[in-house]
Amino acid sequence: MARIVQKFGGTSVADIDRIKAVALRVKSEVDKGHQVAVVVSAMAGVTNQLVDYVDSISTLYDAREYDVVVSTGEQVTSGLLALALQDLGIGARSWLGWQIPVRTDDSHGKARIEDIPSADLIARLETGEVVVVPGFQGIAPDNRVTTLGRGGSDTSAVALAAALKADRCDIYTDVDGVYTTDPRIVAKARKLDKITYEEMLEMASVGAKVLQTRSVEVAMKQGVRVEVRSSFSDARGTLVVDEDEIVEQELVSGIAYSRDEAKITLVKVADRPGVAAGIFGPLADANINVDMIVQNVSDDGARTDVTFTVAERDLEHAVATIEKERGEIGYERLMSDKNVVKVSVIGVGMRSHAGVAKRMFSTLAEKGINIQVISTSEIKVSVLIAEEYTELALRALHTAYGLDAD
Amino acid sequence: MARIVQKFGGTSVADIDRIKAVALRVKSEVDKGHQVAVVVSAMAGVTNQLVDYVDSISTLYDAREYDVVVSTGEQVTSGLLALALQDLGIGARSWLGWQIPVRTDDSHGKARIEDIPSADLIARLETGEVVVVPGFQGIAPDNRVTTLGRGGSDTSAVALAAALKADRCDIYTDVDGVYTTDPRIVAKARKLDKITYEEMLEMASVGAKVLQTRSVEVAMKQGVRVEVRSSFSDARGTLVVDEDEIVEQELVSGIAYSRDEAKITLVKVADRPGVAAGIFGPLADANINVDMIVQNVSDDGARTDVTFTVAERDLEHAVATIEKERGEIGYERLMSDKNVVKVSVIGVGMRSHAGVAKRMFSTLAEKGINIQVISTSEIKVSVLIAEEYTELALRALHTAYGLDAD
Repeated sequence: MARIVQKFGGTSVADIDRIKAVALRVKSEVDKGHQVAVVVSAMAGVTNQLVDYVDSISTLYDAREYDVVVSTGEQVTSGLLALALQDLGIGARSWLGWQIPVRTDDSHGKARIEDIPSADLIARLETGEVVVVPGFQGIAPDNRVTTLGRGGSDTSAVALAAALKADRCDIYTDVDGVYTTDPRIVAKARKLDKITYEEMLEMASVGAKVLQTRSVEVAMKQGVRVEVRSSFSDARGTLVVDEDEIVEQELVSGIAYSRDEAKITLVKVADRPGVAAGIFGPLADANINVDMIVQNVSDDGARTDVTFTVAERDLEHAVATIEKERGEIGYERLMSDKNVVKVSVIGVGMRSHAGVAKRMFSTLAEKGINIQVISTSEIKVSVLIAEEYTELALRALHTAYGLDAD
Repeated sequence: MARIVQKFGGTSVADIDRIKAVALRVKSEVDKGHQVAVVVSAMAGVTNQLVDYVDSISTLYDAREYDVVVSTGEQVTSGLLALALQDLGIGARSWLGWQIPVRTDDSHGKARIEDIPSADLIARLETGEVVVVPGFQGIAPDNRVTTLGRGGSDTSAVALAAALKADRCDIYTDVDGVYTTDPRIVAKARKLDKITYEEMLEMASVGAKVLQTRSVEVAMKQGVRVEVRSSFSDARGTLVVDEDEIVEQELVSGIAYSRDEAKITLVKVADRPGVAAGIFGPLADANINVDMIVQNVSDDGARTDVTFTVAERDLEHAVATIEKERGEIGYERLMSDKNVVKVSVIGVGMRSHAGVAKRMFSTLAEKGINIQVISTSEIKVSVLIAEEYTELALRALHTAYGLDAD
């Protein structure tokens, strides 16, 4: 007997028939004697519809009311799944965010879960009842509704698994696992049987949309065994686990990319102490996330070029923010470019092996691809290149690191 | 300065533009210096969609999960209206059923409001903030979501007005008031300036769908002044008030009708003590509401015919329930008829005037309309007739009681 959390994404609960199919999948675990808690997303398209409503009603933006509106999609699915389970003869009830309660901080629209009291839920699970929880939602300290950001239901599921001390957390989605790279671009991409938390985190943060980044952080911190698998097949998916559980670690596990990048270059910035703060302080105040940053060596020791990247959707806002500070910062010219992509090579194996970055640079050079910006972390090397080279770069790197399927 | 509750129905908040129009209407009261609380329905069509989901997912029916699903429509509207108000520069926030909390009993799907703590809301109103409340929803003693039955947002509004000690409760809807009868059938129908609670109650209970019956009961009991008016015009609507406020009371205020009726006749029932209980006990146990009942004088003192009406949607269930008890009841034959309509003449004036019923019977007789069943209350006379005579009967009665517009 195991205790399992199952999470079903929007495409898995897209209509009544699929919700019934989900109920059967839950039942198959119950029939094996397992205790099951289920976390559900909104039916596909519903959250987008609700976000559109909010966008079209208000130019201002009260994130607290946004949360009231967009959290309803998951509530609908949770009630429907409880009914579908009852229809199969399985005891089930929905537990809304405020009923459990899923306590979060007050960062509406992107709240972080702080606590999920689990005694009541565990008592229900122990009677054999299925606990159905709408993902994505919680309540702030002042009892107002919060949501966890897009993809937040993954985090709901992992946090619930941690709170329930579940044996595993199965994330059912519309892909059948985590791949070495995007199989729509690289035909020889392979499904990974296992991946470490750290790698999954890097993959998620650079555009592999399989799991919300925050959910991987929580899984890693709490040691929740996560399996990413398909709602539409019984094939095993990809286990996200601790490094210890992976016996033969590849040098590189995967290659991710993100098109949602834009590059800003400030030409001839005065090279003096405090200039970085002058640039990045106002951006932080404007809630714009800056990713890669490079500062060129100055020609004459007095002026320097600063290049950085932001999410493409933030570009306009970022440019306006910088231009407002032009007097303060003192640059000659601002250039921006949306036609860039960030390609990242990821693998815990690179900690103990030199040469991973070098192979990346030489592979891209061989294909005549110019590298615009480089950033590295302990288990990742990322480069910014022109967007038109995306496919070429991914295929070349996939081969270069020996990831191609036989 | 007055304190006002405004309630907007589904067609009044049917899309984003209409919600913005509602915000302007709220603003016009705020600009006059009034304190305003708003109760909103789900956007038109949304609740039906949600009910369809529930109906199609489950043959069984857990009303607690039904409530979780169908209560979301109002939540969406409440958040959107708060945003639209903020966009006009008006302080506003949504208050969900569980946040206030709107405490109800545990009759899921048709719960009754028991208590609405108002101190927090009044404090907000006194700062000039608009309080936006999703109608139709509350919470049961065990903290699960309840709904108040179709049209329940009217009751939410009236109960909130009572709790807030509001000066009036404006019910905005897609008609511009209460009419002497259905203006789609009788061209000479007149809009009433005022109507008593008792009359409104009888009108609502026999098919005039302007207000939920329960909302009128609450208004009467708590003395809430209700005005029914149109969202789409500035014309005054119909005030629902205490009898004292109506100086010149008409003999008859209105003529209502209900097509949702079916007639069952049990032929040659053994006429002995306990037989009525034998028939109506099982129907009550099956949660079927019986409306009109007549028992004919028996020919020979041993056998009698019993006729009664139920809602058309309950007919099949009622017939099955009776047939199961056939041995116990002992009747010769069961006849049923869906092609019937109940026409009711309503007016508090009839308390002090004889002859109202007589005029009804003679008017129908002149038109050759056969009366199948009669029932009366203190301020209402209802008859069951063949459905094909509906229009003829309404027009003739409207003229006979002097209700025609000039």
